[in-house]
Amino acid sequence: MTGAAGGDGTAEIMPELQRLRDSIDNIDAALIHMLAERFRCTQAVGALKAEHGLPPADPEREARQIRRLRSRAEQARLDPEFAEKFLNFIVGEVIRHHRAIADAATD
Amino acid sequence: MTGAAGGDGTAEIMPELQRLRDSIDNIDAALIHMLAERFRCTQAVGALKAEHGLPPADPEREARQIRRLRSRAEQARLDPEFAEKFLNFIVGEVIRHHRAIADAATD
Repeated sequence: MTGAAGGDGTAEIMPELQRLRDSIDNIDAALIHMLAERFRCTQAVGALKAEHGLPPADPEREARQIRRLRSRAEQARLDPEFAEKFLNFIVGEVIRHHRAIADAATD
Repeated sequence: MTGAAGGDGTAEIMPELQRLRDSIDNIDAALIHMLAERFRCTQAVGALKAEHGLPPADPEREARQIRRLRSRAEQARLDPEFAEKFLNFIVGEVIRHHRAIADAATD
């Protein structure tokens, strides 16, 4: 007997909870693989920019990405504020990568 | 003549840069839709938990998710630290949603 299967009425919801959690775990696996692919692309962008002495950040491109992602989020009924926070989170990591590549290139 | 197509040597890399950016935009669209689906699942989890008076956060479940995601990230050659930061970022938003659902349920 685990706590989750105890007498507090949670046992009856466990199958539904488990079903939802299995979906979440599948989606997380997909997200991780999409993110890995995204970083492969941004690492290639970073290498290309470093090779040609272009700055790692590109505010105009980022502003366009944010506009497009907010609009997509609305279509998908996802909070556009969250979509923008999410992109900023990812771009922060990308810029960290690009700086590392640029630093390595100029060493 | 735009700045990006100017005489500083960036014109030659534009086709490759554009190809990579098109991939990034496709991946971002996929990420947004996967995130929308993930939030549909976690909203359902939140409603189920609120209905049965279960706490929004579940540290044991989260610890298992983090272990699994770090291992998946390693397989996909994604920085496991980033994968963990990513999950924490998403879970932070989910807990915010769950609290809002629980607050609405007890109003």
